[in-house]
Amino acid sequence: MFSALQWHDVNTPLLISAWLFLIIMARILFHRSNVLAKIFPESALLIVLGLIVGLILDKLWVMDIYLHPDLFFLYLLPPIALDAGYFLPNNAFFTNLGTILLYAVVGTVFNIITIAGVIYAFAPLYEWSLPFIDILLFATLISAVDPVAVLSVFEEIHVNQLLYICVFGESLLNDAVTVVLYHSLSSMAKIGSENLIREDFVHAFINFAMVSTGGILIGLVWVCVTAFATKWSYDVPILQPLVCLFFPYLSYLISESVHMSGILAIVTCGLMMKPYISGNLNEKALTTVKYFLKTLSSCCEAIIFVFLGLSTFSKNHTWDLMFALVTVTACIFCRFIGVMILTWIANGKRVQKIGLMDQVIMGYGGLRGAICYGLVMTLDRDAIPAKDMLVSTTVVVIVVTVFFQGTTIKPLVRLLKVKTQEPLQKTVTQQVLTHSGDDMMAGVEAIIGMRGSNYWRRRLSEFNHNYVQPTLMRTPTSRGEKLMEKYSALSAEEQRLRLLERFGV
Amino acid sequence: MFSALQWHDVNTPLLISAWLFLIIMARILFHRSNVLAKIFPESALLIVLGLIVGLILDKLWVMDIYLHPDLFFLYLLPPIALDAGYFLPNNAFFTNLGTILLYAVVGTVFNIITIAGVIYAFAPLYEWSLPFIDILLFATLISAVDPVAVLSVFEEIHVNQLLYICVFGESLLNDAVTVVLYHSLSSMAKIGSENLIREDFVHAFINFAMVSTGGILIGLVWVCVTAFATKWSYDVPILQPLVCLFFPYLSYLISESVHMSGILAIVTCGLMMKPYISGNLNEKALTTVKYFLKTLSSCCEAIIFVFLGLSTFSKNHTWDLMFALVTVTACIFCRFIGVMILTWIANGKRVQKIGLMDQVIMGYGGLRGAICYGLVMTLDRDAIPAKDMLVSTTVVVIVVTVFFQGTTIKPLVRLLKVKTQEPLQKTVTQQVLTHSGDDMMAGVEAIIGMRGSNYWRRRLSEFNHNYVQPTLMRTPTSRGEKLMEKYSALSAEEQRLRLLERFGV
Repeated sequence: MFSALQWHDVNTPLLISAWLFLIIMARILFHRSNVLAKIFPESALLIVLGLIVGLILDKLWVMDIYLHPDLFFLYLLPPIALDAGYFLPNNAFFTNLGTILLYAVVGTVFNIITIAGVIYAFAPLYEWSLPFIDILLFATLISAVDPVAVLSVFEEIHVNQLLYICVFGESLLNDAVTVVLYHSLSSMAKIGSENLIREDFVHAFINFAMVSTGGILIGLVWVCVTAFATKWSYDVPILQPLVCLFFPYLSYLISESVHMSGILAIVTCGLMMKPYISGNLNEKALTTVKYFLKTLSSCCEAIIFVFLGLSTFSKNHTWDLMFALVTVTACIFCRFIGVMILTWIANGKRVQKIGLMDQVIMGYGGLRGAICYGLVMTLDRDAIPAKDMLVSTTVVVIVVTVFFQGTTIKPLVRLLKVKTQEPLQKTVTQQVLTHSGDDMMAGVEAIIGMRGSNYWRRRLSEFNHNYVQPTLMRTPTSRGEKLMEKYSALSAEEQRLRLLERFGV
Repeated sequence: MFSALQWHDVNTPLLISAWLFLIIMARILFHRSNVLAKIFPESALLIVLGLIVGLILDKLWVMDIYLHPDLFFLYLLPPIALDAGYFLPNNAFFTNLGTILLYAVVGTVFNIITIAGVIYAFAPLYEWSLPFIDILLFATLISAVDPVAVLSVFEEIHVNQLLYICVFGESLLNDAVTVVLYHSLSSMAKIGSENLIREDFVHAFINFAMVSTGGILIGLVWVCVTAFATKWSYDVPILQPLVCLFFPYLSYLISESVHMSGILAIVTCGLMMKPYISGNLNEKALTTVKYFLKTLSSCCEAIIFVFLGLSTFSKNHTWDLMFALVTVTACIFCRFIGVMILTWIANGKRVQKIGLMDQVIMGYGGLRGAICYGLVMTLDRDAIPAKDMLVSTTVVVIVVTVFFQGTTIKPLVRLLKVKTQEPLQKTVTQQVLTHSGDDMMAGVEAIIGMRGSNYWRRRLSEFNHNYVQPTLMRTPTSRGEKLMEKYSALSAEEQRLRLLERFGV
């Protein structure tokens, strides 16, 4: 009689929830067992989990689970990109912008071309014959470097900030570059390589530039909207976390719907909104935004890795051993060569040089991850008949880099004695010195009539303080005020500690 | 050429996001305009927003937007229920459990029966002829009281804690009772009133008891799972907010899938997990859980109210003026009478009596809201042909109570001079006194050989401290330790403030 209670479709959310439950529990248990967590990166565990479940499902059912492109591009990628943009250290990023752009843009293009070249050179050895445009597309998606494993190692052993920001910044922009290039190339692949004329390549380049610029501009517009919304919602703080998490996502969706780069929009939004929202949100709301964003993005990444493990037992696999071998080798070597060449160029202009050990770690840290897998799953089987083989190869590349490089990078960093740095908070004196140093440099530049980076940075900071901050922030604070605040907070804290000491608490 | 960029379905999430954006901005602007926010409850604004958009959509398209039952029961209701359970003050709730159960269970049943009786008595005046079982079902769903408007007024003017906890606790359990009863009755309505025999009513009652108990038990199991998961995930704090928000939801889904009461499961889970997770989570993770839960539930409520406004311009409306008039009157009067009678019963046993003014406010605070609307939309048109008329009537009841009672309750509370209470943090002395008072009462009870509420509370607290806490918590703390911690924190803070004063900061 009461079966009518079951009146709605509870099975779909229950299935998804059961999955998520499994992932969460596996991660908790993984971190509980100190041995496993010390040797393997977390992504390795998640792939194995997916693998086991995939094996079981494979035996029990004949169904094939795979990552749907919509799920990846609309729901899993945006939180990961927002997280990366938001937690990028602004100051270090803009100081090293030149070097980072060199690695991310030139480096990625270098990687794509060399990998495509190597794969194309060995073409006669493969079972499949691939047109060059398909190889180029594949080289693009396989060039997306996943920094999670490397960064978690870096954070654990506190490498120097230069290395950290270079790897972080590179991987962030590298994702954006590969995704945008991927879309340009995949529409070219649909035309078919025999129909491509030189004009198409020119168009593709113009398109790439437009799509990137458009994405960044939309991102900037949404920085303003988010800042205004948080400024005005001071009376309804309960809405603020939603504004900060949801508006950047909206910028992503809008960008995508007008054919601009959503990933660049959301990264820009995350990167630029940080100073304004920290001024507009109360402490609790800000903590919520940061913490929840981290939780969300780590969850999205975990889901992608489990899908990757799952698909390892897919029935659609098509292996081409030589192709896989060449790809893995090309991925690893081109990365090393690219890093060496680009560092040589970058060091020519830099005062603080990037050392040899840092280069080795940067090269070695080129693990492939979630983005590669998401992109390869998005390929159109009609345009690229070899899709299944490319998916299989991508899985091989990811598994090899995650398991081999991922497990050995921590011992390697220790072995190579990469310069480390204690995560010290700057003292007030250091802050004052840095600031006055910057100001002095700007003064020197003004006297000798040069307009270097210090001049422009000072100009930008003045503009920000005089016009942007008062518009977008509730309580704009100047550099001097911040310093004074910090000073009085520090001295009060010091006194309190001394007091506690005296009372022997 | 590059239209291929638009490779996935971006429109659905974009549409939903645009909606959410509109809701967020409307709420921000509403709170910015002090005049509006002072007169109307927020729900009124949201209904008007839905109404305006509904009007525009109605003119532009011929489509009909309505709240799908799946959306309501699977995604919007659980966060609201979890929020209510989590933020219920445990201590006050268990101290006044008897009174609250009286209001929530007996009161709700009283309301249902009297409203159904009144509606049935005027049956000849309606255009529709309704079987009694349908009227009973309708009376059930219209008895779900929405506390949001009242509680927000209470929080603003700090009414005394007794009134606060009674209204909060009542509305929380009242939702659960109505939802469970609703399901029992709706399956009876499907059988059809002519086929119902007395046994069906007995079955319905047994079913009600089983479904409730089952839900509570599943909730308790998930309290343990959540506590264990947070205890073990100390090394991966990034997962903890997800565990605390997602596991209760899982308890809801599992309950529903085995035909138990999901709402009771999630409420139990939220209510009972609080002390354990606060011991297991670090401060930031805990803030994130609390803040995000509040944000989420307020968002879900807002969505329901907008849907309600939207549906006001639906083309499916069927009006029965007399029926609506009788229902509105019955809802308001039965509520008042019920509160009066039950308070009289409760006051017979209570030491701290519930005053007349408090009763008036409790009666007047019986606004109808999101739950009513969600439930009425879930009705099965095949079983209940009058569904459209019932939906229209429900919309009328909600709009009348929200706009009329919702806007007048704040002036009324001021006018009636309801006893208010400053939201003081208990001083250490007060805490010690309360605790030793409780202990003394338990001692007195032991001497005179009575086992009253103090005895059982002490027993339960001992059991919790000796067995449950060490199992479920990472660092269980006894009452005494908590007191000492608080004391040293207080004295350090006091010293710091004095210091700051002396320095004139």
